[in-house]
Amino acid sequence: MHSLAEISKILNGEIQGDSNILISGLSSLDKANNEHLSYINNNKYINELANTKAGAVIINKELSKECNTNALIVENVYLAFAKASQIFSKKTTYNEGIHKSSVVNNSIISSNCSVGKNVVIGKDSVIGSNVVIGDDVVIGSNADIAPNVCILNKCIIGNNASISPGVVIGSEGFGNALDNNSKWHKINHFGRVTIGDNVTIGANTTIDRGTLKDTEIHSGVRIDNLVHVAHNVIIGEDTAIAGCTGIAGSAIIGKRCLIGGGVGILGHLNVCDDAIISATTTVYKNITSAKTYTGIMPIMLHNKWQNVSMWLTKLDKIIDYLNIKLRNLKEK
Amino acid sequence: MHSLAEISKILNGEIQGDSNILISGLSSLDKANNEHLSYINNNKYINELANTKAGAVIINKELSKECNTNALIVENVYLAFAKASQIFSKKTTYNEGIHKSSVVNNSIISSNCSVGKNVVIGKDSVIGSNVVIGDDVVIGSNADIAPNVCILNKCIIGNNASISPGVVIGSEGFGNALDNNSKWHKINHFGRVTIGDNVTIGANTTIDRGTLKDTEIHSGVRIDNLVHVAHNVIIGEDTAIAGCTGIAGSAIIGKRCLIGGGVGILGHLNVCDDAIISATTTVYKNITSAKTYTGIMPIMLHNKWQNVSMWLTKLDKIIDYLNIKLRNLKEK
Amino acid sequence: MHSLAEISKILNGEIQGDSNILISGLSSLDKANNEHLSYINNNKYINELANTKAGAVIINKELSKECNTNALIVENVYLAFAKASQIFSKKTTYNEGIHKSSVVNNSIISSNCSVGKNVVIGKDSVIGSNVVIGDDVVIGSNADIAPNVCILNKCIIGNNASISPGVVIGSEGFGNALDNNSKWHKINHFGRVTIGDNVTIGANTTIDRGTLKDTEIHSGVRIDNLVHVAHNVIIGEDTAIAGCTGIAGSAIIGKRCLIGGGVGILGHLNVCDDAIISATTTVYKNITSAKTYTGIMPIMLHNKWQNVSMWLTKLDKIIDYLNIKLRNLKEK
Repeated sequence: MHSLAEISKILNGEIQGDSNILISGLSSLDKANNEHLSYINNNKYINELANTKAGAVIINKELSKECNTNALIVENVYLAFAKASQIFSKKTTYNEGIHKSSVVNNSIISSNCSVGKNVVIGKDSVIGSNVVIGDDVVIGSNADIAPNVCILNKCIIGNNASISPGVVIGSEGFGNALDNNSKWHKINHFGRVTIGDNVTIGANTTIDRGTLKDTEIHSGVRIDNLVHVAHNVIIGEDTAIAGCTGIAGSAIIGKRCLIGGGVGILGHLNVCDDAIISATTTVYKNITSAKTYTGIMPIMLHNKWQNVSMWLTKLDKIIDYLNIKLRNLKEK
Repeated sequence: MHSLAEISKILNGEIQGDSNILISGLSSLDKANNEHLSYINNNKYINELANTKAGAVIINKELSKECNTNALIVENVYLAFAKASQIFSKKTTYNEGIHKSSVVNNSIISSNCSVGKNVVIGKDSVIGSNVVIGDDVVIGSNADIAPNVCILNKCIIGNNASISPGVVIGSEGFGNALDNNSKWHKINHFGRVTIGDNVTIGANTTIDRGTLKDTEIHSGVRIDNLVHVAHNVIIGEDTAIAGCTGIAGSAIIGKRCLIGGGVGILGHLNVCDDAIISATTTVYKNITSAKTYTGIMPIMLHNKWQNVSMWLTKLDKIIDYLNIKLRNLKEK
Repeated sequence: MHSLAEISKILNGEIQGDSNILISGLSSLDKANNEHLSYINNNKYINELANTKAGAVIINKELSKECNTNALIVENVYLAFAKASQIFSKKTTYNEGIHKSSVVNNSIISSNCSVGKNVVIGKDSVIGSNVVIGDDVVIGSNADIAPNVCILNKCIIGNNASISPGVVIGSEGFGNALDNNSKWHKINHFGRVTIGDNVTIGANTTIDRGTLKDTEIHSGVRIDNLVHVAHNVIIGEDTAIAGCTGIAGSAIIGKRCLIGGGVGILGHLNVCDDAIISATTTVYKNITSAKTYTGIMPIMLHNKWQNVSMWLTKLDKIIDYLNIKLRNLKEK
């Protein structure tokens, strides 16, 4: 527990309200209780600010007028949040074998595993060699967890999971705030990864935990090898994602989507239910219709590509030279 | 062993022939013996159906007329095959240390390794710490297997292998069949990964096992880091593949190819011998000539790209407006 | 120690100078001492050749006239260097637990770790389970090394490092020389990975060691998940690199760059300070100005893409048909 005054000193902030309240951790505006410190970095969360139960909120001067709870006023909210995240995190340590507080039922835990505190594993699961399971993890029944997998603190995995070797679940998200000297400050992540029932995850895929909320993989999802799922991503039921695809932070993918291999989905985007994305396509805007989308540079003989790509970089000038206007191209 | 009648009940099929025959496992039409169940999902395998020695074949109504052995007739062959694959698979467990049935000659097995049953490792090999080797694996002489590698059941690795940390060999392929409710059914994989002599594999690369046949990496192949090789892929001798490349299921790559980094090769394609694929190119059709191929979107200043890409999405309409016909563009 | 005569026999070379000198290892022209064998493969290093202190240099006939030290003259310098690299490398072995020659201060070393010889770990660091640390590694204070990480021989990591699960640091680079029979000869790598202070590295990322010099990650760098950093790459201070990006060999990235996810940076390129590269862009030429660069194929409905991409492959012919010349497109 840290007083708001102590925290304010580290964050170089100004307190509006009670500087003596005690803070035990961080939470999002909508989930915080009165021991939590939250933050608001964007006017679109103004309703959540109005209704928050947080003990205090990191906020800028302007928005502080709208704050009904204690405010910690700073210039750079995101940077202050990064520093706060460092106050409340601590390094995880790992014990040998199965901690005595954990329940693994009749499941098989193979050699050289580390199973943390308060872990629950359902019936008939098999955990391969060298698997590391952090504290407070829950794994359902009939799971098949291959060797060398890491499932870190607080992550939740449903029944019938099939997780291939080298998978990492619950790694730190890629969140960093810049200060005025162009130095990064790491944001420590407190959310979980929650995985539904009947999910399969391919070899060496990585799924980062959420910042304050959870990264969510819903039931029935299929993920192939070497896929990167960033913090706060939500993947809807029964969506399938092929190998080498990367999904950036806070993207929300619908149900029953088919996402090809090598796809890149940028952060904070939405992909609607039943969308199909061709392999190696980059998704840089929302997908709002359940159709098939493609963005692949055509493959050519290299010499041909040199010519084509040279002219392609001048396409806007070519259009200008030809005096073509957008209205000329209307559908007939 | 399961009788065809039992299997038929689970797969909701209709038997044509002897419902009492006993099935011990799954195999492809061309490799099956009379204890095997096989399947045919595509008319192009009709010759293999005619010659199969399989005890029974999962098949649709139409093709069942061509079936000379026992038939298990279903509506959705691929889905029925997925369910059958689940009948015959079981979770792998791992023992501590070297199983007594295994032979490792004078090779060094480092700390915290798990070496399964009936493993053979040749002379002068070194296996790093935390390596997991499944049952029935064969590794040749003079292999250098780095720490934290997984080589799963039945995989074969030749002499002089150099395998970097975190590599996964023999993980489950990404095979799934959809049912009428848009739910996926996992296909369990029974093929192996077979790797020839003098092969090097880079860190955290993953190579999935074949479905019924093998994934094959031929002698002399060089694979860089974070490469994804899917089920049933065949890579010809002395081909080199740079980092972050993904090769989808059943692609066949020739000999002495040079494949750049970040390349995507789609499933079921052929790339001929001696082809060169530039980095980050997507291969979405067969490559039939030993030339250099490229498909890279040109890099531009971002503002420029915004203009160019806007017009690029309208290129077909521009052509239409200019009244250009394909025949206008003939070679002179 | 091998005499130059012995080495020459294996490399099938001709000696100019003293065949009796003893060679203990390989080094670059500028760093070699008189027990080192070096090589020159490119006229641009002619000044380094003139000033080298190497005991001997692998060289071709033509350049040998410029060589002031002992020369080992061969037809294919790169191939001979590959063979020499094999003479001086040996397989790494791993011990159980912490080697008695190593100093770990008050840092926590979790279960099933292997810590090699002459390792130094600073104060207040935590090393997760199943981490493998090779010989002569140095890790600073307050490091947070997650489970299943490999940090191989001689690598150096500064203070306050945060390294996620499954990361590989110091794996072999992807260097291979072709002989006249189209067979690859592996180049063993003798450089290190050196990582500055305050660096974070995401899950399952791989960083290869340099060939003779080091791969360098400077202080303050942020690297996300599943990133591939090849041999001899240098990444400047405070640069951030998002997930699934691949950086090919010997690329040099400036300070404070922002590199999106899924980017490919080709080998031997320079990216200047403060450059911004949009996600999934391929960088195939030097970036010399601190601006934002993009090369993404636009995403379209699949049918639309079929039309657009067909015409795109004919863009050079369309330009020809329209009789457009580059000079027509000059800025006005």
